[in-house]
Amino acid sequence: MTDQMYRVALASRPSGAPTTENFRYEPVPMPEPAEGEVLVRVHYMSLDPYMRGRMDDAKSYAAPVPIGGTMEAGAVGEVIASNSPAFKPGDFAFGMFGWATHGCLPAKMLRKIDPDQAPITTSLGVLGMPGFTGWQGLMEYGRPKAGETLVVAAATGPVGSMVGQVARLMGLRTVGIAGGADKCRMATETFGFDDCLDHRAYATAKDLRAALSDACPDGIDIYFENVGGKVLEAVIPLMNNFGRIPICGMIAWYDAGGLGAGAAAEGLSAPALWRNILVKFLSVNGFIISNHWNRFPTFLNEIAPKVASGEIKYVEDVAEGLENAPATFMSMLKGGNHGKQIVKVI
Amino acid sequence: MTDQMYRVALASRPSGAPTTENFRYEPVPMPEPAEGEVLVRVHYMSLDPYMRGRMDDAKSYAAPVPIGGTMEAGAVGEVIASNSPAFKPGDFAFGMFGWATHGCLPAKMLRKIDPDQAPITTSLGVLGMPGFTGWQGLMEYGRPKAGETLVVAAATGPVGSMVGQVARLMGLRTVGIAGGADKCRMATETFGFDDCLDHRAYATAKDLRAALSDACPDGIDIYFENVGGKVLEAVIPLMNNFGRIPICGMIAWYDAGGLGAGAAAEGLSAPALWRNILVKFLSVNGFIISNHWNRFPTFLNEIAPKVASGEIKYVEDVAEGLENAPATFMSMLKGGNHGKQIVKVI
Repeated sequence: MTDQMYRVALASRPSGAPTTENFRYEPVPMPEPAEGEVLVRVHYMSLDPYMRGRMDDAKSYAAPVPIGGTMEAGAVGEVIASNSPAFKPGDFAFGMFGWATHGCLPAKMLRKIDPDQAPITTSLGVLGMPGFTGWQGLMEYGRPKAGETLVVAAATGPVGSMVGQVARLMGLRTVGIAGGADKCRMATETFGFDDCLDHRAYATAKDLRAALSDACPDGIDIYFENVGGKVLEAVIPLMNNFGRIPICGMIAWYDAGGLGAGAAAEGLSAPALWRNILVKFLSVNGFIISNHWNRFPTFLNEIAPKVASGEIKYVEDVAEGLENAPATFMSMLKGGNHGKQIVKVI
Repeated sequence: MTDQMYRVALASRPSGAPTTENFRYEPVPMPEPAEGEVLVRVHYMSLDPYMRGRMDDAKSYAAPVPIGGTMEAGAVGEVIASNSPAFKPGDFAFGMFGWATHGCLPAKMLRKIDPDQAPITTSLGVLGMPGFTGWQGLMEYGRPKAGETLVVAAATGPVGSMVGQVARLMGLRTVGIAGGADKCRMATETFGFDDCLDHRAYATAKDLRAALSDACPDGIDIYFENVGGKVLEAVIPLMNNFGRIPICGMIAWYDAGGLGAGAAAEGLSAPALWRNILVKFLSVNGFIISNHWNRFPTFLNEIAPKVASGEIKYVEDVAEGLENAPATFMSMLKGGNHGKQIVKVI
């Protein structure tokens, strides 16, 4: 075992979109597992939009990554040393190891992964936090009913594709929004969306709204919100009475940082948003998946068999090398990924 | 029985705050009850903020009053002619008779009122639509828990005073917001709020927020929304994680009409509002009480005895004369009323 490992640290906080200078790839000493801890050699690491939020020091639901700290990430790998009876070398484990080649965490913070049941990468996407986020937000706050219409953006991402597929299996009309014709084809052909609109093809929220209106002839009952911005502005006037909006993210607005009065709201004002919630009796719920882990076993029981049978599909986009994680992350925030973004670390 | 009655019609749609020219007080022929209908001589009529919305033709949850149509209102009076076995002359009935001295409606659209159980005016306020709105919104969407903190504006109005009193009886800390020192005293002394802030004493949302922060040392768990504007802007950053915001109105923004992009949002942008919902896991629900009438018997069962015993207090502000309804209404929209605004018609 070498005495050093590599990691990506937060070098400085971004103003606006992150740049290369905000990250630092560097060697650090290899940790040794203390009593109850487990050392893991990371094979695959997850990249997710929420990490953009952790780079800011705005008050949020999670503490920011400190300057000089390791960027946060879920990752999966092989146990190479264990000081806990719960894990032995050769086991596979998922944990919040960060952007790093190795991670050392208490056994109770790890989840054992069976590599014979599904590819270990699925623990980062379709059967991990993103897939669970889509399922849980849809079921608890979307409250889907057969015959209704659902809209979700980032439709080919691991959250949006789960939302769309679960809703379709429950008998809803599903309309995705994605960036580019390729992704829209993936949304309808691979993930079975009834329709998918390329938001890049519409210059304004108004244009996008007109297209959405055609794609949703009965209006929108559930808007699963993960992007904000132009899509939200297009969707809001199309919401039906008693519509539901689970909010798990707003990637379009992340670079606005603290999002004070100056943040770009384009054609949507706070009063207009508030008024729509009132006059259409909307139910809007923000959530973070970390408050819902008690439902994770139910999710796995329901969804893992459907993934195994192919009823629920997933697409992964695997980049190579931890040193490329910053560039991959920056590209993902602009929609450069096709499916769940993963970094192969080993 | 004379062959004419009086009403107030909508003469024109307001742009901004309503003015005298928007209303027309006029005689119209006395209706005769058709089969199944009941003719009522109105004694008291209700004035409520929602009526401002009916004067606009913006898409909303209810059809606008047509130009030349009778202004909408709930009212209570004595049956003077009946073509239905359900009512006989001398009975008292509540119905949507509008701004008028008389009203003729099908018996099934009326609610019989027992004048011996409570003053008939209570059917317009504490035991009518406004009190029910406060109770239902609080119970279903506020989900109050002992030890939490609740904030409501228009704290001495019939909605806010019900919300505050029910929450206090359930063991919450209740903080009201009202316009003027008199109303604040009424809120604490009559309605038992733990504290009440005079929004007129704070020039900006930021100043109001600082005072609210002092009044709510443990943050805000429930904000019962009926005003919008500066109060909303002050409250949002003080909301606790998992906070709830039932929305039943936004009187501060009614004059903005359609509330498009140009509506005054002051220091609160749509993205900032949306971000707060996400990062604090807020639950925001718009509602209109007309979708909840199935719960009205439960409300009366629970609250009428508490009103009779004096555990729940109410204050009524009675103006004289239907011809004065427009001026009273305009004054009420600016906060000129002290307690539930009623017009004595007979």
